[in-house]
Amino acid sequence: MTLRVTVWNEFRHEKQNELIGAIYPDGMHTAIANRLRKESDFEVRTATLDEPEHGLTQEVLDTTDVLTWWGHRAHAEVSDEVVERIRERVLDGMGLIVLHSAHYSKIFKALMGTSCSLKWREANDNERIWIVNPAHQITRGLPEYIDIEREEMYGEYFDIPAPDELLMVSWFKGGEVFRSGCTFTRGRGKIFYFRPGHESYPTYYNEQVLQVIINAVRWAAPSGGPAPTFHNYQPLESLEG
Amino acid sequence: MTLRVTVWNEFRHEKQNELIGAIYPDGMHTAIANRLRKESDFEVRTATLDEPEHGLTQEVLDTTDVLTWWGHRAHAEVSDEVVERIRERVLDGMGLIVLHSAHYSKIFKALMGTSCSLKWREANDNERIWIVNPAHQITRGLPEYIDIEREEMYGEYFDIPAPDELLMVSWFKGGEVFRSGCTFTRGRGKIFYFRPGHESYPTYYNEQVLQVIINAVRWAAPSGGPAPTFHNYQPLESLEG
Amino acid sequence: MTLRVTVWNEFRHEKQNELIGAIYPDGMHTAIANRLRKESDFEVRTATLDEPEHGLTQEVLDTTDVLTWWGHRAHAEVSDEVVERIRERVLDGMGLIVLHSAHYSKIFKALMGTSCSLKWREANDNERIWIVNPAHQITRGLPEYIDIEREEMYGEYFDIPAPDELLMVSWFKGGEVFRSGCTFTRGRGKIFYFRPGHESYPTYYNEQVLQVIINAVRWAAPSGGPAPTFHNYQPLESLEG
Amino acid sequence: MTLRVTVWNEFRHEKQNELIGAIYPDGMHTAIANRLRKESDFEVRTATLDEPEHGLTQEVLDTTDVLTWWGHRAHAEVSDEVVERIRERVLDGMGLIVLHSAHYSKIFKALMGTSCSLKWREANDNERIWIVNPAHQITRGLPEYIDIEREEMYGEYFDIPAPDELLMVSWFKGGEVFRSGCTFTRGRGKIFYFRPGHESYPTYYNEQVLQVIINAVRWAAPSGGPAPTFHNYQPLESLEG
Repeated sequence: MTLRVTVWNEFRHEKQNELIGAIYPDGMHTAIANRLRKESDFEVRTATLDEPEHGLTQEVLDTTDVLTWWGHRAHAEVSDEVVERIRERVLDGMGLIVLHSAHYSKIFKALMGTSCSLKWREANDNERIWIVNPAHQITRGLPEYIDIEREEMYGEYFDIPAPDELLMVSWFKGGEVFRSGCTFTRGRGKIFYFRPGHESYPTYYNEQVLQVIINAVRWAAPSGGPAPTFHNYQPLESLEG
Repeated sequence: MTLRVTVWNEFRHEKQNELIGAIYPDGMHTAIANRLRKESDFEVRTATLDEPEHGLTQEVLDTTDVLTWWGHRAHAEVSDEVVERIRERVLDGMGLIVLHSAHYSKIFKALMGTSCSLKWREANDNERIWIVNPAHQITRGLPEYIDIEREEMYGEYFDIPAPDELLMVSWFKGGEVFRSGCTFTRGRGKIFYFRPGHESYPTYYNEQVLQVIINAVRWAAPSGGPAPTFHNYQPLESLEG
Repeated sequence: MTLRVTVWNEFRHEKQNELIGAIYPDGMHTAIANRLRKESDFEVRTATLDEPEHGLTQEVLDTTDVLTWWGHRAHAEVSDEVVERIRERVLDGMGLIVLHSAHYSKIFKALMGTSCSLKWREANDNERIWIVNPAHQITRGLPEYIDIEREEMYGEYFDIPAPDELLMVSWFKGGEVFRSGCTFTRGRGKIFYFRPGHESYPTYYNEQVLQVIINAVRWAAPSGGPAPTFHNYQPLESLEG
Repeated sequence: MTLRVTVWNEFRHEKQNELIGAIYPDGMHTAIANRLRKESDFEVRTATLDEPEHGLTQEVLDTTDVLTWWGHRAHAEVSDEVVERIRERVLDGMGLIVLHSAHYSKIFKALMGTSCSLKWREANDNERIWIVNPAHQITRGLPEYIDIEREEMYGEYFDIPAPDELLMVSWFKGGEVFRSGCTFTRGRGKIFYFRPGHESYPTYYNEQVLQVIINAVRWAAPSGGPAPTFHNYQPLESLEG
């Protein structure tokens, strides 16, 4: 079964900052999409903030099985109308992969109900991401941990609801830990938050990081479960007679 | 330790419908508050929709440990400003008990991130509420189930995030089940959703239903845990030297 | 990818009771296996209690991706050695589907740590199984509920640990509810408990019940996640220098 | 309400190793019990391995609300009969606090159903225990993290079922993380696993560590919820007529 993936990116840092542009000349979305396209069952598109409707028209969302989201400085520029459109699609079954600083995106905050705040530090910390649920499909093909030589630190308390499943916990050299791989369900939709990916590091070329995203796309694919109905409901026929 | 409880009610049905007014002449909030006042460690106030700021000024909320909420037809009339004020207090540790049709209140939907929709039927169904987690403090003093002779039916699918803890499941004569007692955590705040309490039945005089609310108030009291800080964070001193 | 499934059955009732033998002339395992064999990616074997080592030699288990288990009266006859062998394989990643009265099997009790007791009644109750998590892969292709005209009743309290995910809740005509579809993780192994399937009813010919088992087999397939190592561990090389 | 606490200890290291005996001259149990006795609502006893029935007769357990457990080298010497006796009491509502190396005790393994294995290292690591659920009663009065200057390292993967609630995650200087504060429910009993407390460090004199144990005792107190009944069950009277 083909999975239709849309890779969304704010795509501002890469154009405004020379160093970041040198790492991701065509944007982080292109780096991610290029890797996803190597999976024969994925059909991959990209979309970015400055396109009309941020590239996320109703038609695009209606033909998207899984949406990945990276944003940072321009969260406020994402229109509330598009955010609500995404939320409806998630509740209806579209998967959502929330990357790094998108913890603070409008769509993630709307789906979580909390502040989604955290501690942070840009100081070239070592990050070691430990797998704490090796039974989960998202950990397929991974070693016991993923080492990232340099990353921005994110530290607890991370103000999210308790995840349905906690898959990964990061260790940072400076003394912090972070719940780095978290699953959530909202309506018929599955959501995966994955921590790494600060714009000034080449994290989205790391094969293990990309493997997690690929696994997460497969996991977050629509379940094919029943579409719930909400209405004034009649009793069991078998009891009426 | 004294717990400061504020019992909130929309308080419209009781004034507009004679039959409902006959059941709750002073409003459902008064019925609930009168019972809570018998607990020597509770200090109880009430507040209603038509008071200024719905009776929920910043000062009232700041001195409330646990807020109980009943609303139905007038959810839309609750001001967004007050909803946000409540949400901030919940994230900061205030407990919230969400009763019956308040599943569709602005505050519950904002904290859940989902539609909070369900099936319903007003047909004098029998309801039997089974306890499925007898280890939980909220089940103190209860039998294995609570029978309610007549109630409105609520049926699955109930569009909420998976609760942190599922305590109760309702059986309805007409053929439905419902997750009737659900706990959630948001920030430092604890939330309990409890199903029974349709306005046209004398449910809030049922001693077992009231016992659940009393237990839930004690459970939802502020934890006294650490207030999280969110900011640019410095590394471990012990590693700096 | 081919999934190697072993369908295990106690296979006593069918031989000892004429009425049950008439429903399942070749045993319940054969009814289940025949349906699973129609899935082109499944490779299906069966095994039963009275075979040597209950048909579950180390070699059979080592080449089993997912094991389904039905037992009832003869739980005590399953050897502790084979139970421990199964437990090791589950912790190492083999999926386990636990059916109906197998709630009381040695292997399920060993993996849960609780009594796994419940209420029951054989009285031709109607059962209606409601889906309460339509985002889950195990609900693929199902309607909002499954009706079973006649089944044994199982009622709460069901003494299991809180499931990782609650997928289904049964309603019974006589006034009970039951957590009928429950997932658990133990080590790298995934476990699904599914309630229906009393031996005196033709439940394992019900297409929707069989669809749940098929979906559960796919869900419980080994994750391919990292094999954990447990030992005296050396520190990060990057910190040693 | 008075809480009857029994503090259990293997009490071998302290007698066999001079350095450890110097830290805990009367045993770790005495250090813990002395602090618990300062809580006016606690009634505290101790019990140790080498007493008859390990100090845990049926009468002692029947009058214990919460049992704390520390063991290490002599897990195998705890009699299976006493382990089963404890398990029955936990399922019936007695709280259990499992400390440090008791992750590998017979009673914890029996209640978890997994291997409860982990990585470890004795190398005077710094440990920093971060609170990841500040809404929980067990975090009362604590700062955002607890620093322990020197401790044994425990590292993931920790082979336990996913905890009902994850309260704390440890950071170790050498590069590891660990789920250090975990709650579980089994039957009517509440269980808390708490990581720190290696015998060769003075951890059980650390006021914050002791505060966690005190909070956990209060949290694990019997719920007073309904005692489940398991039997052949009759249908709703209201439906029979």
